[in-house]
Amino acid sequence: MKKIGVALLGLGTVGFGTYKILTDNKAEIEKKHGVSIEVKHILEKNPKRAEETGVNPRLISTDINNVINDPEISIVAEFFGGIEPARSYLIACLKAGKSIVTANKELFSKHWAEFNEVAEESGAGIYFEASCMGGVPIVRTLTAGLQGDNILSIAGIFNGTTNYILTNMADNGEEYGAVLKRAQDLGYAEANPSADVDGFDSMYKLSILASLAFNKKVPLNKIYREGISKISKEDIERGKDFGYTLKLIAMAKNKGKIDARVHPMFVENSHPLASVKSSFNAVVIEGDNVGDVMLYGRGAGDLPTGSAVVSDIVYCALQKEYKRFGFKKESDKDYATDFVSKYYIRMTVDDKSGVLAKIAGVFGKYEVSINSMHQKPLSGGVSSIVFLIHETSELNINKAIAEIKSLNVLKEVDALIRIF
Amino acid sequence: MKKIGVALLGLGTVGFGTYKILTDNKAEIEKKHGVSIEVKHILEKNPKRAEETGVNPRLISTDINNVINDPEISIVAEFFGGIEPARSYLIACLKAGKSIVTANKELFSKHWAEFNEVAEESGAGIYFEASCMGGVPIVRTLTAGLQGDNILSIAGIFNGTTNYILTNMADNGEEYGAVLKRAQDLGYAEANPSADVDGFDSMYKLSILASLAFNKKVPLNKIYREGISKISKEDIERGKDFGYTLKLIAMAKNKGKIDARVHPMFVENSHPLASVKSSFNAVVIEGDNVGDVMLYGRGAGDLPTGSAVVSDIVYCALQKEYKRFGFKKESDKDYATDFVSKYYIRMTVDDKSGVLAKIAGVFGKYEVSINSMHQKPLSGGVSSIVFLIHETSELNINKAIAEIKSLNVLKEVDALIRIF
Repeated sequence: MKKIGVALLGLGTVGFGTYKILTDNKAEIEKKHGVSIEVKHILEKNPKRAEETGVNPRLISTDINNVINDPEISIVAEFFGGIEPARSYLIACLKAGKSIVTANKELFSKHWAEFNEVAEESGAGIYFEASCMGGVPIVRTLTAGLQGDNILSIAGIFNGTTNYILTNMADNGEEYGAVLKRAQDLGYAEANPSADVDGFDSMYKLSILASLAFNKKVPLNKIYREGISKISKEDIERGKDFGYTLKLIAMAKNKGKIDARVHPMFVENSHPLASVKSSFNAVVIEGDNVGDVMLYGRGAGDLPTGSAVVSDIVYCALQKEYKRFGFKKESDKDYATDFVSKYYIRMTVDDKSGVLAKIAGVFGKYEVSINSMHQKPLSGGVSSIVFLIHETSELNINKAIAEIKSLNVLKEVDALIRIF
Repeated sequence: MKKIGVALLGLGTVGFGTYKILTDNKAEIEKKHGVSIEVKHILEKNPKRAEETGVNPRLISTDINNVINDPEISIVAEFFGGIEPARSYLIACLKAGKSIVTANKELFSKHWAEFNEVAEESGAGIYFEASCMGGVPIVRTLTAGLQGDNILSIAGIFNGTTNYILTNMADNGEEYGAVLKRAQDLGYAEANPSADVDGFDSMYKLSILASLAFNKKVPLNKIYREGISKISKEDIERGKDFGYTLKLIAMAKNKGKIDARVHPMFVENSHPLASVKSSFNAVVIEGDNVGDVMLYGRGAGDLPTGSAVVSDIVYCALQKEYKRFGFKKESDKDYATDFVSKYYIRMTVDDKSGVLAKIAGVFGKYEVSINSMHQKPLSGGVSSIVFLIHETSELNINKAIAEIKSLNVLKEVDALIRIF
């Protein structure tokens, strides 16, 4: 039987999850896939982890040279997170001809091209199933499936922390700050939650998946990004009245120009993405022949993510030749600078006659067509109005909003939320 | 660029869908996958199809030797359906070293082992993504993904015709016969609907997918099968009161022994399978590490199924070595002869005192534990009772029902439906 030596860079939650799967399922993997995978070395700085995890301390060191110089190690899986030293270590491994497996979406979305260049030279493979949607095999689906389709769009819920927060806000009527605090106390959100709540994590994943889907580079700086920190329970509640659920959606379309964005969206309750609850992830891929295909599952966690890492290790071990993806950045004009969407806009205005006519006049000027309007009187002589807007250009919406803000009847534009 | 010649056996709906995708997406496939696929020959008996489809008549014949003897054809995709002549033709192609791609679940689930044996000898490949769930890449997910998991169970809605019927019964309160008739008129169901409504189609797919999932043969004769023709709208309506949706579920578990079944089931409304509507298909795969992963999409149609065939053709064309699956039938004792489930049982009984005590006594004798009971008086001195039964052995349920049927207070056991 083919024998493959593996190194793990990091023995944190997912690193140990991977170690555990490789150990517990070793015989099954040998039987099913005909390859014997052995962990030969682990890099870990925390001297207590050997004891905590029960891993043989002789496997553990802090010196990357123990990995690079071991000819029996042919696959290196990275769990450090962040950019350095992960980047330098992986580059060194690739240079030494070792294939890499990573769950690190930030690193991979930023340095994919660099890794690819080094790998092209040395002939090593690059695998990143675990970087997106935990154990859900979305990378394999896009790289080894759906070859009969041009992918027209990809849209999903890629971040469990924000989905947990939004699910709790919707189900329990809580405000953002309160749920975030609890999520932090429970360890579901980081002390500094920005990577999740500001949409960076979703953006990294979207960059990776959209590039695969469209066979074109979708770089981070071409992705519009807006997080959930300004979402109020008022909008979630009013969305319910229209049959909408609020989700942080990452979506990219390739219909002429590439349009990629991460932002909160109202999703119709009948759409499968609306019922993705709590820490689950889901993605809908639209192909020109297959139509919509959805994948759904746990987007994070030691064993789900470890499952994806092991899947990559076994897959890599069985390849005769590594398929690599060297997407070039397209010309700037191939990326959209505007897009169309439907909108929900909530504003507070003076509660007197003629106000609506003024606002409607501005919308009309910019060809923004109102689908419906719902007014709610508040105390203090003001009203809260929600407009649902037909599909229209974002540039036009922005111009209309800017002009409405200058009307003296307007108190505030409270929310602008796109509709899926 | 690598050039691959393909033959299509049949130019019906899916055959032509495949031809269309291979033609329309030719340049995209070359660009994305680096392989040029050309349709070299098509077998088709109907002389009108060339004209109807606009396919060059010089590509078309009725002689399989035009395929077998053409050294430029290396992949043969089959769309005949049924067993013969598809089986003989594919065997001949495999013997000639040509890889095969099939959408034919009946043929493939019955003759997989035979195909495999011939292919092992000639070195050809066997691909069957299109045999299950149309364009949803479930076969690729099980063969090229999830390598980090032991698959514990697989459960899904694999048949669009029955799901269309059940969805209409539930949404419009119609009886089975009326919806079936309309489905036939619309071309969604065959004149002889048995393959769909009696669960054969689902059983073929379950046999294929469960074998892949468990890496063990799950033969047709080890799958319990029950169709939807006895389902009444009464049960669908009463199920709604308990928060259930009725679905034809194909499921297989591998927890000790292999337990595989196709039968109607009540699914809790909160479960993702409950919201799979109309002709859509879905499958939930349970891995020991990844947890539940769901795939969802169109399970049939010319382009969705053609998409899966083209996916296989491209995938096959790029392989350096074909992976084949030669599952041996396990010993008989490795297949379950009993299983546990929760149950919904509806019966009509005399409306008089002491009846419930008698029935409950029989359930108790066979260790069948009642979760809840809902009685509805009918006219004529009888009552309709629904029992929800805690998880229990099917053998015990059957014994209890047989004994209850002999009670003189019982008019009828109207329905026994398992609960997911």
